[in-house]
Amino acid sequence: MTRYLITGAGGFVGRNLAGALLDRMTPGDELTLLDREVASPHPRARAVEGDLGEGAVLEAALAARPDVVFHLASVPGALAEREYALGRRVNVDATLNLFEGLADAARPPTLVYASSVAVYSALGTAPVDARTPLHPQLSYGTHKRMMELALEDFSRRGELRGVALRLPGIVARPGESSGFGSAFMSDVIRSLAAGKPYTCPVSPGGAAWWMSAPCAARNLLHAGELGTPGTWTLPALHLSVGQVVTALSTLFGDDRGALVTYQPDERIEALFGRYPPLHTPEAEALGFTHDGSARRLVRAALTAR
Amino acid sequence: MTRYLITGAGGFVGRNLAGALLDRMTPGDELTLLDREVASPHPRARAVEGDLGEGAVLEAALAARPDVVFHLASVPGALAEREYALGRRVNVDATLNLFEGLADAARPPTLVYASSVAVYSALGTAPVDARTPLHPQLSYGTHKRMMELALEDFSRRGELRGVALRLPGIVARPGESSGFGSAFMSDVIRSLAAGKPYTCPVSPGGAAWWMSAPCAARNLLHAGELGTPGTWTLPALHLSVGQVVTALSTLFGDDRGALVTYQPDERIEALFGRYPPLHTPEAEALGFTHDGSARRLVRAALTAR
Repeated sequence: MTRYLITGAGGFVGRNLAGALLDRMTPGDELTLLDREVASPHPRARAVEGDLGEGAVLEAALAARPDVVFHLASVPGALAEREYALGRRVNVDATLNLFEGLADAARPPTLVYASSVAVYSALGTAPVDARTPLHPQLSYGTHKRMMELALEDFSRRGELRGVALRLPGIVARPGESSGFGSAFMSDVIRSLAAGKPYTCPVSPGGAAWWMSAPCAARNLLHAGELGTPGTWTLPALHLSVGQVVTALSTLFGDDRGALVTYQPDERIEALFGRYPPLHTPEAEALGFTHDGSARRLVRAALTAR
Repeated sequence: MTRYLITGAGGFVGRNLAGALLDRMTPGDELTLLDREVASPHPRARAVEGDLGEGAVLEAALAARPDVVFHLASVPGALAEREYALGRRVNVDATLNLFEGLADAARPPTLVYASSVAVYSALGTAPVDARTPLHPQLSYGTHKRMMELALEDFSRRGELRGVALRLPGIVARPGESSGFGSAFMSDVIRSLAAGKPYTCPVSPGGAAWWMSAPCAARNLLHAGELGTPGTWTLPALHLSVGQVVTALSTLFGDDRGALVTYQPDERIEALFGRYPPLHTPEAEALGFTHDGSARRLVRAALTAR
């Protein structure tokens, strides 16, 4: 019997994780979903609605005494850059308060923290690996790195089993993507699959690190089962926008490629369209995976909730 | 005309910095000293007494609209490890609040942050340089690294000119040293210079990075004048306890070495007595310095206030 808690359960990754977790939960397991709004709560899950930054909401979530926590609640990058105080409140203060609240448990809970490849930034052309220095270029990535360090400290103190996973761009968010500079990654997939024209702010050669939401959910669940403390960059597919468009054309018809117009935006391209190759042998040895191929990525991305 | 603020002005490094700054202040310059207690405030300095973690105290310090801030206020390592909540309140929350309060200024102030070599820990035998990974082994060092990252972010945002200096063990604290695992570094100097016996918790071959308080004050003042944003490990003398004892014997008489009894404490030796050589060409190129020799270190350390 395991008690689970997902913060940010109403968000894109949260919804997909909650769905995947409910599919594999066994009788006796309990799940608490925390977010400002939890749309259509599942009969097997308890919903706690409110702002994690408020003490009463945190208390309500901790009252379930979770064994495994997936902490996904976060103010996204572009929004956190515009509204520094909001980013600090959620991405730093509320996150530290959650770690501290859990650290009081008799048996150290597993805390799976959704970090981000935004901890890197300023990447050159050399492949990224465990030795790549971390120089976040946004407050969002700075705060993610700060929380990785804090979580490692709670693990060292024996108060949590902290597993920080650096997520790449997760696709494909349905509907309007707001607050994410990397929105183009989802939008190009959703638009072309639906046969709609799309204006892409990154050039066809602009490369990023991609992962489907179902694959991200699998990796998060794997981290929760593993409970091995540490910080890992997840394996991800290193693909150009052009390669993703080709996969969409292969799956939906060659005319789909013609639906894209490229109007590169230097700021977005610099932040999200110049990722070098990624080497993650440590994470792969622990059983973390990417989608396998551009076509599998696109197919899985389109099943995302 | 420059307006200065020193937080932690009543502490060991703070007292020495305030003294050195008052010696070189020119007419029109203003200095605010902030601490829970500011002993014997100087006629040319304004004292703000209180806890930096309290909003009203922070407001009072910011009311002077400082151009150059030396942020030294900190809960020391051993105490922050025992009392996590206190460490978070001062070393994280109050520090971020100070950065944010200063970031509102019309012209970005220079913020010199006293970080620590505790951001390293878990060092091997290979020399430390700018490529050495940072794996803090105490909550204190974790929080220092978190604040370095936060300060770099404020510099990137153009809201502060943040200069983080990683201080080594600073000597020689007068009187009782509490809360510092590295207290032996000061105690061995003070005891032997005074002709008193001393039981050392680190073996004679145990090596650390040393700097006198006057030298630390010079480096902090230099950072305030330079205002070049960045994070630097200060140059420091890499000396064994035995080398420092030899310097003391040379200065005060050969019998002084016999005053030391070695009773190594594995935990203290592991944290503070196994530092490898240190290479800091970047900091030296910017004009930061160490004491020059073990004898000069001891002589300067004994002039510390």
